[in-house]
Amino acid sequence: MQSRVLKQLRSILGIARVSVSGADRQLHAQDQSDFDQVLPDVVVWPQTTHEVSEIVQLANRFKVPVTAWGAGTSLEGNSIPVQKGIVIDFSHMDQIVDLHERDLQVTVQAGVMYKDMNAVLSEHDLFFAPDPGANASIGGMIATNAAGPHTIKYGSTNENVLALEVVLANGEIVHTGSRSIKQASGYNLTQLFAGSEGTLGLVTQATLKLEPIPRRKVTATAVFNNIMDIATAVSEIIGNGMQPAALELLDTNTAKTLMDDADVQIQSGPTLLIEFSGNTAAWMEKQMEVAQIICEEHGCINFDDSYSEEESHRIWQTRKQIRRLAVRQHPSHKWLITDVSVPISQFPEMVNFVEDSVSKLDITCNILGHAGDGNLLIGIYYKPNDRKCAERAERFKQMQVSKAIRLGGTCAGEHGIGIGKRKYMVQEHGYEAINLMKQLKDTLDPNNILNPGKIFLN
Amino acid sequence: MQSRVLKQLRSILGIARVSVSGADRQLHAQDQSDFDQVLPDVVVWPQTTHEVSEIVQLANRFKVPVTAWGAGTSLEGNSIPVQKGIVIDFSHMDQIVDLHERDLQVTVQAGVMYKDMNAVLSEHDLFFAPDPGANASIGGMIATNAAGPHTIKYGSTNENVLALEVVLANGEIVHTGSRSIKQASGYNLTQLFAGSEGTLGLVTQATLKLEPIPRRKVTATAVFNNIMDIATAVSEIIGNGMQPAALELLDTNTAKTLMDDADVQIQSGPTLLIEFSGNTAAWMEKQMEVAQIICEEHGCINFDDSYSEEESHRIWQTRKQIRRLAVRQHPSHKWLITDVSVPISQFPEMVNFVEDSVSKLDITCNILGHAGDGNLLIGIYYKPNDRKCAERAERFKQMQVSKAIRLGGTCAGEHGIGIGKRKYMVQEHGYEAINLMKQLKDTLDPNNILNPGKIFLN
Repeated sequence: MQSRVLKQLRSILGIARVSVSGADRQLHAQDQSDFDQVLPDVVVWPQTTHEVSEIVQLANRFKVPVTAWGAGTSLEGNSIPVQKGIVIDFSHMDQIVDLHERDLQVTVQAGVMYKDMNAVLSEHDLFFAPDPGANASIGGMIATNAAGPHTIKYGSTNENVLALEVVLANGEIVHTGSRSIKQASGYNLTQLFAGSEGTLGLVTQATLKLEPIPRRKVTATAVFNNIMDIATAVSEIIGNGMQPAALELLDTNTAKTLMDDADVQIQSGPTLLIEFSGNTAAWMEKQMEVAQIICEEHGCINFDDSYSEEESHRIWQTRKQIRRLAVRQHPSHKWLITDVSVPISQFPEMVNFVEDSVSKLDITCNILGHAGDGNLLIGIYYKPNDRKCAERAERFKQMQVSKAIRLGGTCAGEHGIGIGKRKYMVQEHGYEAINLMKQLKDTLDPNNILNPGKIFLN
Repeated sequence: MQSRVLKQLRSILGIARVSVSGADRQLHAQDQSDFDQVLPDVVVWPQTTHEVSEIVQLANRFKVPVTAWGAGTSLEGNSIPVQKGIVIDFSHMDQIVDLHERDLQVTVQAGVMYKDMNAVLSEHDLFFAPDPGANASIGGMIATNAAGPHTIKYGSTNENVLALEVVLANGEIVHTGSRSIKQASGYNLTQLFAGSEGTLGLVTQATLKLEPIPRRKVTATAVFNNIMDIATAVSEIIGNGMQPAALELLDTNTAKTLMDDADVQIQSGPTLLIEFSGNTAAWMEKQMEVAQIICEEHGCINFDDSYSEEESHRIWQTRKQIRRLAVRQHPSHKWLITDVSVPISQFPEMVNFVEDSVSKLDITCNILGHAGDGNLLIGIYYKPNDRKCAERAERFKQMQVSKAIRLGGTCAGEHGIGIGKRKYMVQEHGYEAINLMKQLKDTLDPNNILNPGKIFLN
């Protein structure tokens, strides 16, 4: 890092918000994935969009890489500054700018954490629905189009974004979209930036759609003899046009881990977590009855929807911790996670393929997923020095992705591409589409300063 | 048009699917707007994506404009070939390629008409929810992000598109998205092409999300003393988190036209059409009760939800014809339509402003709108030779757009920009965003052959 860049950063932000300390650089060197850490040259904490613009202008002039940092909770190395340079930490830009309560909308700075934001919104009986496990920042959620258990009902992050403020690679500040819920006014810049992992521009502010907090929720656990039966039941529930709030698949081990931690007793076995939510008890009871019938027709051996509100709450809170809990069960292992998503009719075949491959390749893993979305998340564990096992894990990941693509699905349902899935991009989208994406990148970021090394292999 | 271009078009498509006849050119010279017609040089009818690719390659080589034609039902001149050249009529590409019934998805060619498609899908108890008035083509609906009365419940066209096949300006065929309902895999090319009005690429095929046909629907008419009260009631209904299937505002005259044509008797006055749909009668009754209370609290003088299924059907069918009926009431007039959309909390102020302006400027018009979306559609009529009246109409349109933008809204809720709203683009999006859109256009269509003269003023 040239000293004049550092000097100018300090002149923009003052000394206190520019750090080259080892500790600060270390804290911005790795996300929650297990990819190798890379320390940035400098970490900065802007407080305004104007400051972000000045930083990016400077970086563009000196061709210094710039990587945005929200909460560091990404899972594919998306926020690792692989080419070093400047990390922009958005944690000082965490304000709720404007609550438009009557419009069910909120305008926030990119650095606000979604759980913190929802805590404030809950006082108004509103919430932002996309719910990844970790307490991600809104900017990070938009960058990777994050999703979670309740996406099946409410959509993923990008479907709940109406407008953005974005700093371009040349430092220009662009406003996209509007607060109208219908927009047919020129190119959809909002959705171009959303999901682009900070490689086309840096989101500094966003206007989000909110939902009223449903007055009632009911949770059920459905225990099956095998995972395949769960997959078939889920495909049947969705194919019937039912509208659950969540349908989460857990293998035996993951279910046990979750329920033990939530202090809820259930029979051991592959488990489907079901939630319905709404304001009408009768509607939800009816839906849950139908869900039970479908589950029992497909091999469910124990269906329980008698949980208290508190127990349900604990179950869903613990579901969000599951990655942390599972990783903790495999101390001193490395891990990788897959995130394929397929059309729901193909979910049983996908699950069947995974079970087969896991057994053939002797893989140690958790099998879980946002089953209602056709989204399978396999956490794979291997000893750091066991090269063969690491190779098998990579091979499994490749096989699973290839299968998902053949079934009409994607290598990335909700974690983005980062560095972990760059190699599948051509296979999924074809050369023509990847070339087009690269042309867009070249147009918007000709010096390749914005989160370089992500999404594309070269 | 150079004769060698014609010759090559005939060699690609055969003689029968290339026409330079005056009649065919006339039929592709004007959409449903009142902008001046422009006859293309030639009309062609490809039957395959490969043929579309060959046509576009040819056009690109000779720098001949190419405008896609679906049903010609656009309302802002979007499909008028203002720079002549080739019109590609997609009516021979109208196949349902693949029904993925269990996934609630369908893959279709771009030329299929949505009502024809829904007639087929209804045999499977499914439908594509976005519903503009006219029987638009799917390609056209995607090009303008079309919407309609039920957008409030199901979203606009683009929110229901999962994957596209697109022919680029250089003739390359690109596939975007996938059949996974969750996608976080690189740049969102699907949403870049959707809504771009055929200026970035030509959509040849699309995979759409479908909805189960709701088993029950209930309709109510709520007659008020004035339109402002309707606006306030609608804002209250949405602000309360209720989930109607449609909330349509009609001024006194439009309501009378509609009800007369539907052969339904109601009290005369500004009217709100309300629909709830679902599978649970109790839920819908409860919602309708609450809607009635809100309406009556805001000045509703007659609330009627006693319509038979057949009457309801007639009301909603006629609602889709309302543009045609209204235009017919003003013979030998020219007309223009506005399509501003604002956050729902601002809808009363928008309506107030419109009523004021209409009265001050002495405008002859219908005031109607997809009120639940904050989308106001004003049809303005003037005598072709009355220059002053035409100027007042244009002035009204400009005033209304400026107001909508000040209120956080957009100049285009569902009709796109075409040629009619190009002049508002900078005002709505700012120079930086428009420059960025133009850069994207230059990158994807360097010779400016795709629907030139649309979206941007220059």
